[in-house]
Amino acid sequence: MPSINPQAIREGDRLALSKALTAVENGLPESQEIQAALFPFTGQAHLLGITGSPGSGKSTLVNQLAKFFRCQRTYGKTPKIAIVAVDPTSPFSGGALLGDRIRMQDLSGDKGIFIRSMASRGALGGLAHTTAAFATVLDGAGFDMIIIETVGAGQAEVEIASLAHTTIVVETPGMGDDIQAIKAGILEIGDILVVNKADQPGAENAARALQVMLEMGRGGGWERYPAGKHMRSGPHELKNPNPDPSLPTWQPPIQLVTATDGTGVEELASYVVDHKTFLKETGLWQIKESHRLEKDLEVLIQDLLLREWLDRLEDGQYEVVLKEVVTRKRTPIDAAQSLIRKIN
Amino acid sequence: MPSINPQAIREGDRLALSKALTAVENGLPESQEIQAALFPFTGQAHLLGITGSPGSGKSTLVNQLAKFFRCQRTYGKTPKIAIVAVDPTSPFSGGALLGDRIRMQDLSGDKGIFIRSMASRGALGGLAHTTAAFATVLDGAGFDMIIIETVGAGQAEVEIASLAHTTIVVETPGMGDDIQAIKAGILEIGDILVVNKADQPGAENAARALQVMLEMGRGGGWERYPAGKHMRSGPHELKNPNPDPSLPTWQPPIQLVTATDGTGVEELASYVVDHKTFLKETGLWQIKESHRLEKDLEVLIQDLLLREWLDRLEDGQYEVVLKEVVTRKRTPIDAAQSLIRKIN
Repeated sequence: MPSINPQAIREGDRLALSKALTAVENGLPESQEIQAALFPFTGQAHLLGITGSPGSGKSTLVNQLAKFFRCQRTYGKTPKIAIVAVDPTSPFSGGALLGDRIRMQDLSGDKGIFIRSMASRGALGGLAHTTAAFATVLDGAGFDMIIIETVGAGQAEVEIASLAHTTIVVETPGMGDDIQAIKAGILEIGDILVVNKADQPGAENAARALQVMLEMGRGGGWERYPAGKHMRSGPHELKNPNPDPSLPTWQPPIQLVTATDGTGVEELASYVVDHKTFLKETGLWQIKESHRLEKDLEVLIQDLLLREWLDRLEDGQYEVVLKEVVTRKRTPIDAAQSLIRKIN
Repeated sequence: MPSINPQAIREGDRLALSKALTAVENGLPESQEIQAALFPFTGQAHLLGITGSPGSGKSTLVNQLAKFFRCQRTYGKTPKIAIVAVDPTSPFSGGALLGDRIRMQDLSGDKGIFIRSMASRGALGGLAHTTAAFATVLDGAGFDMIIIETVGAGQAEVEIASLAHTTIVVETPGMGDDIQAIKAGILEIGDILVVNKADQPGAENAARALQVMLEMGRGGGWERYPAGKHMRSGPHELKNPNPDPSLPTWQPPIQLVTATDGTGVEELASYVVDHKTFLKETGLWQIKESHRLEKDLEVLIQDLLLREWLDRLEDGQYEVVLKEVVTRKRTPIDAAQSLIRKIN
């Protein structure tokens, strides 16, 4: 019996929940038992991914959105909301803790909101699995909505955000001028696009630029979903794989928001609800759930394979080959292939 | 004998070089032969990583820096420069090609500059290995400086940038206000910090904010290099692992730049040269080289292990377990462990 009681987590014990999440983060063995106990109860929460560049005001937006939903009965009841700030860089600094503290002040006092930052401290499967495991624990704990906030437009963030049911991409005025914004390409993973800081000059232009990019992306010489050819199971393929043309399709809406004063947050919230309805009606909800679990399985298999292979290596064997590589006698790929031929 | 002649690449044949890079990108078998042929000649180029958010003006800065170096004899001769724009999101869109074309116009006519964007089209080892392989081919082709430009602050970008000898992090005015900028943490991988768009209001403040963050990062309650505890071989550990206190240490300088008119580019270029000198004098150059090759080896081993394991699976075996996961009868981690126990 684990020292953290899954039943306590089910009943809303926050200390037990926090301990469970820390166990997940640190890859402790008991986190597996907790997840196994909670797993049958999962699949209820709406996973909302929010991504955007540093400085785009994502955190403020997430806070506003959470506050808004807590004043509504959108899901038939006032939803319990968990906010997870994924912080791939937190091994580098204490920034996450500082951020948490500041955000806590804003939302403190509301027992229906749980805020937590997340890093992957060497746990099996890395950041992607840790995120999935967090979602399992929070979903099992009865949260109706889990908001996963990621910084940046890197591949890791794109992957994590894509595992959510609904992905919101946050941009700001000025990005429309810059060719990099086109390159960033994360627009194409967004189910809802937000131009935050809409009180600043250029917000309307930015929204128009996004609209143009979306339209270019849907034809006009831009290849929209070529990823399927390159990646084994890219979540972006799932955006609209609707086989039945009579079912509705989803056009990503673009919403102007001023997160600092709440302008546009109500409209954004209604798009979030619309998207959930869309997913449920088209069956995409279940497809995304399955995809998320499959992706998680894949990451874990890869990580376990490496760990087991490393255990089979004899002392010095790796070092000999590494030395050949470092002295440029042998390319890394030749070395990798010969090592695996030997130890397998 | 491969259809692309490595000797032609050594002699400056650009068509052969382009073909080789495309072969690397697409993971073609002949790319391995080309790399093996060029590998003994590598280890000469200065690998310069440049990272920053979309919209920070990285590309303009890279162009200015390249133009500046081409007018100097900094490395005892006019350096041949390759620019690689790493585009982790390019499977999603045609943005990279568009960007290349616009940049070509600016630098065209200079035979000493080679520009290329890079994606990982399912090649073994993914984006990180493709970047390393690009560096091998370009280094072997005789480029003195290889500028690797990455978009965003994601884990993939941080990793790629960190594999360079010298990493430049580009920020812009306004970021200093935002707690996300602290969270982003990429500051701590920067050997040189740039505040671009220094003609805009707030540039001096941004530089001061960076200075404060750097100082906080070096003590004052911030844990600076805890990553070693969590990651097997984080490149950030290599920034200053100087065992001999009599050797010089590197304090990341902060440089104000206006890339659009070239202000500050000369100073930035001199910091780049200073950092190379620092690395060579302290022996860190060789340590970084070794680390880069080791990291590459690691990524390739992991990818090969997964591919070989997948080949050993019987038809349907994976599907049975996946179904148990998707129906929530079994957690992904239980499923992964049992599958690996069976097939290994």
